Amino acid sequence: MKIIVDAMGGDWAPEVVISGAIKAAQEYKINIELVGIPNQIEPFLLKYKYPKDYISIYPASEVIQMSEPAALSIRKKRESSISVGLNLIKERKADAFFSAGNTGAVVCAATLILGMLPRVERPGIAINVPTLKGSSLIIDVGANINPKPLHLLQYGLMADAYFCHILNKPRPSIGLLNIGEEASKGTGFAKEAHHLLSESHLNFAGNIEGKDLFSGKCDIIISDGFVGNIALKVSESLAETLYAFFHRHLKSNLLGMIGAAFLSVSLSRLKKQIDYSEYGGALLLGVNGVVIIGHGRSDASAVKNAICRAKEEVEYRVNERIIETIRGG
Amino acid sequence: MKIIVDAMGGDWAPEVVISGAIKAAQEYKINIELVGIPNQIEPFLLKYKYPKDYISIYPASEVIQMSEPAALSIRKKRESSISVGLNLIKERKADAFFSAGNTGAVVCAATLILGMLPRVERPGIAINVPTLKGSSLIIDVGANINPKPLHLLQYGLMADAYFCHILNKPRPSIGLLNIGEEASKGTGFAKEAHHLLSESHLNFAGNIEGKDLFSGKCDIIISDGFVGNIALKVSESLAETLYAFFHRHLKSNLLGMIGAAFLSVSLSRLKKQIDYSEYGGALLLGVNGVVIIGHGRSDASAVKNAICRAKEEVEYRVNERIIETIRGG
Repeated sequence: MKIIVDAMGGDWAPEVVISGAIKAAQEYKINIELVGIPNQIEPFLLKYKYPKDYISIYPASEVIQMSEPAALSIRKKRESSISVGLNLIKERKADAFFSAGNTGAVVCAATLILGMLPRVERPGIAINVPTLKGSSLIIDVGANINPKPLHLLQYGLMADAYFCHILNKPRPSIGLLNIGEEASKGTGFAKEAHHLLSESHLNFAGNIEGKDLFSGKCDIIISDGFVGNIALKVSESLAETLYAFFHRHLKSNLLGMIGAAFLSVSLSRLKKQIDYSEYGGALLLGVNGVVIIGHGRSDASAVKNAICRAKEEVEYRVNERIIETIRGG
Repeated sequence: MKIIVDAMGGDWAPEVVISGAIKAAQEYKINIELVGIPNQIEPFLLKYKYPKDYISIYPASEVIQMSEPAALSIRKKRESSISVGLNLIKERKADAFFSAGNTGAVVCAATLILGMLPRVERPGIAINVPTLKGSSLIIDVGANINPKPLHLLQYGLMADAYFCHILNKPRPSIGLLNIGEEASKGTGFAKEAHHLLSESHLNFAGNIEGKDLFSGKCDIIISDGFVGNIALKVSESLAETLYAFFHRHLKSNLLGMIGAAFLSVSLSRLKKQIDYSEYGGALLLGVNGVVIIGHGRSDASAVKNAICRAKEEVEYRVNERIIETIRGG
């Protein structure tokens, strides 16, 4: 198996991406091709000890910055690490692609270069979030901000295939993110998506409200990309704000400081449990290839976990499962 | 001043509502009229010691349940505590209305009975959220789920007036909740709202992302009601989930248990700081009268704080300020 890693993507690229890729190659014994500007990659490969049999460089002369407009940058920079890397997947020279770079650009390039799976009209970004009962998968968190109701049904079918075959949980429960539980709630768009999901063979549990996003009420939560993106980013922000509040309180009195000393083990374990980077990257479902998207802030450990995720998707042949599921219903 | 309190609204009505109303009357020396079914209110008034000069009952024979469809219930139950109470405001027999009941029904009845302020087309629910720098006001969190871009401009103007005159902060900064910071980001709707806000005299800081909802980056955050509702409920849920995670970890080992004992003061202070009920109810801005909406789960203290908020809105003549602001720009 060979996994393409966009060495130039992410807030701390290329160094942390290379470091994470080396860890992944060592731990999982998989081939990794780092795509990017060779003379920016080589110094870091020399800095770390790396398994030469498993790591190689594939040159790409351009870099898409995090803040560049997605579609425009993909059209203009044809030699970007994102486009070059995805073309290697298209040509079947590698099995999966990972980038922690500009998410919009990855979505756009993957759609253009790889194309869509049969009977899927739009890609969706799926991400695992920790819940009180384990974890749930939210799709879409920002690939498609103007979806049709039918796209939400397709997200449901793809996520169902992912759950059944990778997580080995048949008939996962599916909820539609909405402002109320009753079928009559929400916009016309939400009502139509509700209708389509109800009529499908999926295990549709109806609408779920924002308050149930982390309760573990459903295995899969379907959302339009605009709402899903805001819900996810609000969550990340709130978790950080609560930490900051908590630390401020801890420092505000002596009992707090003593308590904090006793709690350091619990706190770091908790942080690990709610840290998105532990869950690896997000899946770009619907495109004709395995694509994993990392958070811009990914550290080496997050890169390693995301590469592990790509490896699993390839091993379990997720896209073949999705095609079968969608063909069936 | 007289404030109308919907005695029948809320998950623990009428008891906690009555208890909160009594606390408010005692603390603020204001007249409160409890609207609802007299023989369901009287036993609780007898149970608590209450200031007879300040508390009275106004009969209403019907109750709208929390889960009833909003518009339909308002049309069918003309003698509901919500409609009867709002009619007292319309007839200028009282100064403000508070309910912790069915939010949709309160919004619908307030719009129908009180009508809108001049040049305001739709009401918006505004709620204070704690941030790292103090607090921000988010509008709309669910009154209007199919807004036009112009409604979002009107929310900005109303929230600006509220900030200037009640919070005494001139030229509050205003952000538009969107999926990216650049003006080109988001749906056509978001781009048009961005344009209208940019052209106004408001102190518009541009788009803000979900990750900045709790950072205190803007004083006021404008959102369509669907997205705002989900963002708010996701936040409530996540805060609760993090507490649950934390407590589970605390109990998982001896050091955690010892640490928790030392931390109890910090934890309860933190909880108070992020607890919505401490901030009182939400403001229903745009209707021709002072209306405060409480969380269904409001306890007596939340009811008291919400009544205090109603009192302030009346004292500072918020609606007159809004009319002036909107006339000006």
